Amino acid sequence: MTLHDVTSSVPEIGVAMIGSGLMAKSHTMGYRNVEAVYGTTPYRPRFAVLADAREDLARTGAESLGYERWTIDWREAVTDPDVDVVDIVTPNFLHAEIAMAAIAAGKHVYCEKPLALSAAEAKQMYEAAEKAGVKTLVGFNYLRNPAIAEARRLIASGALGEIWTFNGQFVLDACSDPDVPFTWRFERKLSGSGALGDLGAHIISLAQVLVGPIASVAGINKTFIKTRPEPTGVFGYGSGADLSAPRREVENDDHTSFVMEFANGASGHIEASRVATGRTWHQSVEVIGSLGALQFVQQDIHTLRLYLVGDPADKKGYKEIELGPGHGDYGAFWPFAGVPIGVHELKTIEVNEWLHAIAEDRRPDGDFKEGWRVAEVLDAVEIAAAERRWVDVPVLEEDL
Amino acid sequence: MTLHDVTSSVPEIGVAMIGSGLMAKSHTMGYRNVEAVYGTTPYRPRFAVLADAREDLARTGAESLGYERWTIDWREAVTDPDVDVVDIVTPNFLHAEIAMAAIAAGKHVYCEKPLALSAAEAKQMYEAAEKAGVKTLVGFNYLRNPAIAEARRLIASGALGEIWTFNGQFVLDACSDPDVPFTWRFERKLSGSGALGDLGAHIISLAQVLVGPIASVAGINKTFIKTRPEPTGVFGYGSGADLSAPRREVENDDHTSFVMEFANGASGHIEASRVATGRTWHQSVEVIGSLGALQFVQQDIHTLRLYLVGDPADKKGYKEIELGPGHGDYGAFWPFAGVPIGVHELKTIEVNEWLHAIAEDRRPDGDFKEGWRVAEVLDAVEIAAAERRWVDVPVLEEDL
Amino acid sequence: MTLHDVTSSVPEIGVAMIGSGLMAKSHTMGYRNVEAVYGTTPYRPRFAVLADAREDLARTGAESLGYERWTIDWREAVTDPDVDVVDIVTPNFLHAEIAMAAIAAGKHVYCEKPLALSAAEAKQMYEAAEKAGVKTLVGFNYLRNPAIAEARRLIASGALGEIWTFNGQFVLDACSDPDVPFTWRFERKLSGSGALGDLGAHIISLAQVLVGPIASVAGINKTFIKTRPEPTGVFGYGSGADLSAPRREVENDDHTSFVMEFANGASGHIEASRVATGRTWHQSVEVIGSLGALQFVQQDIHTLRLYLVGDPADKKGYKEIELGPGHGDYGAFWPFAGVPIGVHELKTIEVNEWLHAIAEDRRPDGDFKEGWRVAEVLDAVEIAAAERRWVDVPVLEEDL
Amino acid sequence: MTLHDVTSSVPEIGVAMIGSGLMAKSHTMGYRNVEAVYGTTPYRPRFAVLADAREDLARTGAESLGYERWTIDWREAVTDPDVDVVDIVTPNFLHAEIAMAAIAAGKHVYCEKPLALSAAEAKQMYEAAEKAGVKTLVGFNYLRNPAIAEARRLIASGALGEIWTFNGQFVLDACSDPDVPFTWRFERKLSGSGALGDLGAHIISLAQVLVGPIASVAGINKTFIKTRPEPTGVFGYGSGADLSAPRREVENDDHTSFVMEFANGASGHIEASRVATGRTWHQSVEVIGSLGALQFVQQDIHTLRLYLVGDPADKKGYKEIELGPGHGDYGAFWPFAGVPIGVHELKTIEVNEWLHAIAEDRRPDGDFKEGWRVAEVLDAVEIAAAERRWVDVPVLEEDL
Repeated sequence: MTLHDVTSSVPEIGVAMIGSGLMAKSHTMGYRNVEAVYGTTPYRPRFAVLADAREDLARTGAESLGYERWTIDWREAVTDPDVDVVDIVTPNFLHAEIAMAAIAAGKHVYCEKPLALSAAEAKQMYEAAEKAGVKTLVGFNYLRNPAIAEARRLIASGALGEIWTFNGQFVLDACSDPDVPFTWRFERKLSGSGALGDLGAHIISLAQVLVGPIASVAGINKTFIKTRPEPTGVFGYGSGADLSAPRREVENDDHTSFVMEFANGASGHIEASRVATGRTWHQSVEVIGSLGALQFVQQDIHTLRLYLVGDPADKKGYKEIELGPGHGDYGAFWPFAGVPIGVHELKTIEVNEWLHAIAEDRRPDGDFKEGWRVAEVLDAVEIAAAERRWVDVPVLEEDL
Repeated sequence: MTLHDVTSSVPEIGVAMIGSGLMAKSHTMGYRNVEAVYGTTPYRPRFAVLADAREDLARTGAESLGYERWTIDWREAVTDPDVDVVDIVTPNFLHAEIAMAAIAAGKHVYCEKPLALSAAEAKQMYEAAEKAGVKTLVGFNYLRNPAIAEARRLIASGALGEIWTFNGQFVLDACSDPDVPFTWRFERKLSGSGALGDLGAHIISLAQVLVGPIASVAGINKTFIKTRPEPTGVFGYGSGADLSAPRREVENDDHTSFVMEFANGASGHIEASRVATGRTWHQSVEVIGSLGALQFVQQDIHTLRLYLVGDPADKKGYKEIELGPGHGDYGAFWPFAGVPIGVHELKTIEVNEWLHAIAEDRRPDGDFKEGWRVAEVLDAVEIAAAERRWVDVPVLEEDL
Repeated sequence: MTLHDVTSSVPEIGVAMIGSGLMAKSHTMGYRNVEAVYGTTPYRPRFAVLADAREDLARTGAESLGYERWTIDWREAVTDPDVDVVDIVTPNFLHAEIAMAAIAAGKHVYCEKPLALSAAEAKQMYEAAEKAGVKTLVGFNYLRNPAIAEARRLIASGALGEIWTFNGQFVLDACSDPDVPFTWRFERKLSGSGALGDLGAHIISLAQVLVGPIASVAGINKTFIKTRPEPTGVFGYGSGADLSAPRREVENDDHTSFVMEFANGASGHIEASRVATGRTWHQSVEVIGSLGALQFVQQDIHTLRLYLVGDPADKKGYKEIELGPGHGDYGAFWPFAGVPIGVHELKTIEVNEWLHAIAEDRRPDGDFKEGWRVAEVLDAVEIAAAERRWVDVPVLEEDL
Repeated sequence: MTLHDVTSSVPEIGVAMIGSGLMAKSHTMGYRNVEAVYGTTPYRPRFAVLADAREDLARTGAESLGYERWTIDWREAVTDPDVDVVDIVTPNFLHAEIAMAAIAAGKHVYCEKPLALSAAEAKQMYEAAEKAGVKTLVGFNYLRNPAIAEARRLIASGALGEIWTFNGQFVLDACSDPDVPFTWRFERKLSGSGALGDLGAHIISLAQVLVGPIASVAGINKTFIKTRPEPTGVFGYGSGADLSAPRREVENDDHTSFVMEFANGASGHIEASRVATGRTWHQSVEVIGSLGALQFVQQDIHTLRLYLVGDPADKKGYKEIELGPGHGDYGAFWPFAGVPIGVHELKTIEVNEWLHAIAEDRRPDGDFKEGWRVAEVLDAVEIAAAERRWVDVPVLEEDL
């Protein structure tokens, strides 16, 4: 007989997914695809349980995503003995409570951004995990994108010289329509800040891994759409709007624009907007240094633009480097350069890092400490904008 | 107890994967992700068996991709009772034999492109499947890309008026280096044509679904790199080159460029190249009509460019439509517009169509008939280039 | 005899050019080309006299640019009876003195930007011209660019709704090399601010014509290259560097980045840099409103990008409007759309406005008042950056 | 007295302009701006006479463009003793007759493209000029564009290795509207071919200077808009359409698409269209070789895209070289890189070459010989398209 049974000695890891929305889907596919993409994996996922407060979402989410069990009580999930890691993909206000419970139960915790509603809360989460000795990860899923991986490598190698300026944007128009309903994202006690925490947090994390700690900020936040209709149906992306009821006042920023000084003396600017009419999903970073510069637009996911001062005088110019097997984890996806990788696929890269960090007992790239450092900047920007002044961000000695 | 077991009544479908390379990975992830992406699926895949002529590749491929069994004899796989569908992701010369065997065994067959080494062979495969009543699909994985889905819809709706011209390119530089080794792709009896069949076939399929049947062609094929070193190691993307041995003569085209007349009177041009220095993976189509025009560059996967004659005089211009939930199957991936979808993710769209066609007992979009029609054009281009003349392509009455 | 003499009744206007550098060339070609470009002109230029403090530059400049006479004493030029208009294209520190003398002599004055070294000085110049009843113009040569003309029209028409955000950049790398010599541009008392006044002034003028008066600013200025070598040869673009002498300390900003609030509540950001490694000459503006948005990159001079919220749901996206005869003065250059217009050619548009304003006895678009309003913002940004605080900009009642 | 008179010893050259349309304007500005742009000139233009068959156009054209005299009889102009050079900017069918008369009168002749209605006619013109010893130039105004100048230099230097493929397009939609009136451009005996000669001629000239002589062609020409209304008013760009009269049948091609083989074995494709819906004025070339590749889009006039195989493996990609003083004649316009040069300004480059060639008694770049070689290709494409076959182009020994 020539048909051979496959055997595998890869250990399992039990996953609890807390939440059933878009990120639940993205995380789950990430876990599921790691081994096919990379050819090997330190763990095979066992999709132990999915929790959602709404029974219908918990049941259908668990079924379509392939979980063994479902529950409407996340506490059951985070303490389940089959569970090794807890993924938190809920609205922001639940992050801290769930994470603290999971840490207390000795689980590794992988939480979506922003990590918490304040820097103080984020710090508490970070310290609890440290103390418990569990691994943590924040879903800053652009940090290990092949383009950003290569940008980090180039900057660290000194190829760009002394870094002078950083520009970053994450602007989209998902909420430009004044009749987008008032879901949790618009409510301060459930979401914290608005575009700042939801979108700006990604760019702050990129700024800090590329340039170093941000030391002070000044800026302006705006809520251009003052009121929104009450939501109907699910309390997320699929919500409808009840246009007949009184409108509710929006409680956080639609748009933030702030300048900053980095600890190393570089100058920076970040803009985040959820009402950037005409921009569907635009994320970009630019880093300029004395010896070179680079630009990356997330939508042009196959290309990193690089300029080097040392090029010959008649051949100076930005080069469009087509990302390929030599850049970050690109080669796990394609053996030749230039093929677009999807944003869901970036989660596979993140999950791979996650599983390796657990297996190798090391801190993953972008863990709760990074989430906390980002939260410090978020807090500073909020104060700076509210009080129209420059605000210093505490910088850790060890990060300099 | 609040932890509920998930139950599912979705039937299984047994998959045999013949081949273990890049497309084996892409097909397998496609099957695996359908339910998570779409929320529902007509079938859940059972990864029954993977076959590869090389034992090491068969075993490691089956393990990392999650197949139950492996074999070095594809005949075992295609006749296995656990198998319902056979995916053929081998070098081109094996497509016909495997497909005919699978059809004979009553399996549905999903084959990579080009379908066969000649139109005659492709026709035979198509007719065999018709007679056997099995479903078939060719891996023209760009046909259902959200951008192309929307382009098809727009053209069918008459939004572009009478179609005048088509331009298409699939050019890359994977083989620009003269020391890329002589693998099966360079050998006529194993691969058929070169860039024409490997890359041009995709553009021909797009041309025909967008504009209609191609009626005649004239063009020029070139083999710019006349000899290549013998390969070492695996006979695919990972091959090394034996630079000490005598070099082998390349047997098919590196580059093809041909003009065409469509049955409806439109004019067209297609270029395909595997030695397009500087182009890593560039695929583009442009359709111009009397009332509008559209452009799509596969690397800019989030955008379809559209021009409409009817726009106001002071506001004329190409519009960059950010693809979103209203375009093709985009909404299965993201609830908001503009996010890049990866090329592996396009396979998920293709597999979803495949599973639905089987479940609904209908012909899938892009089946062996389309593969055969493309093969007719490939044959015509080869003759036209070899004999330096215009060659007519037989057009089926039913396709007009 | 069929050869007829051409007669013209167009009156002459005598021009004195103070300076012989790049802008002398650009202004002179502007005057010379107006009639050919527009087909008619209110005045034909008489190139009466060119002045430059250096005799060789005065003589060769006058000859190659076609002036009748030359002088090394600008006072002779501005009081010459053959002169009707005085063009000031000198280093910044001379603007005020020459302009005041020309105004005193009853001449119309066309001065390059920034108008003066401080808002107080600019105000004085504006008021003197008002009192003398002469026309004035500042060389904000992007204000009437076909793209900006159309952008102004669109915004004024309400097509973009309530304006929410403005972003503008003028960044280039002309001074990225630390061995670019210390010419007048780096010396505070000759130039005033650095990148801020030289480049930022253009963007401030665009911001104010597009969005309205800027009401407050906060920002950060940086001098990344602290010292530069002494210059040799001419004291302008052609200077060499004396690398053997001690280096001189740079006295103004290489880079400025500031956020702002407009009087109408919009939020904005402007960046200007003369050390933007990799950017040769990048100027861009973006205006986002509740009903639409627009983007313009000066290097892509043939295109204005426009997004309108009211577009159909499946056809939303930025439109690349190819500028044509319906946009600003484009039609004077080309009868069909999409042809690039050179930056020197923009001066022809500016000179045409200038000559028409004189002939029609009206204030030209972008006169000394606008120069003064821009100077107020420049002053505020300098204070804001130096004192790390928000600074209010005085806004005129009449500009609201 | 410090005002000095300017004296110049630059000799004059008398110009006769035959035609008063767009190109008359562009040529005249070219002559007028040479000295200001370049700082020196071998000749100063004397605008002796302008001729146009229509009295009103002759008179107003001469006045606004600054000619001394006007006439409705071009024969008077070309034999006028004040005239040294004759510029022919008339409809195509008049080129040969005027040029032959001007040559017979011993004048240098600068003629717009296409040079003639047939290769035979073009050859006759070339030979007559050779015999008469006068200089000639064809208005292929893209040949000396800084980007193309640099591309020519790079290719000649071997930087791109062996040239493999050429792609070129000149496509626009000026005639996409079926109600664009039937002017001379649509009539065979007045215009010769349509888009092929009007637009394709430019790309053929670029193909031949970049890659070398074209040896054979096959292609397809299309007239998509079969009839057009009779024109009213002027017989050029400003014509109106008489929609009440019977429509007239279009006599030449709206669109041409042809493949070619160069004498050196390279493969090529050219497309030209006057009905390319959505394309206002798109001109592009791409040259791919064994060691590198380049791309240029005329609308992106400030940038040449260059790829070099020899770049490091992790830094491969197209570089956007911002054109600057080191590239062609760019430095005559701007002392720093990246500033767009207008298409009218390209004529200044061409006129500078023209005046220098006359002064230096040498053949200018792009003279009647090049016009004739292009005409041979135009004839071959017409035959190839009409007879649906490959047609050889005669190649001169000396051009190999």
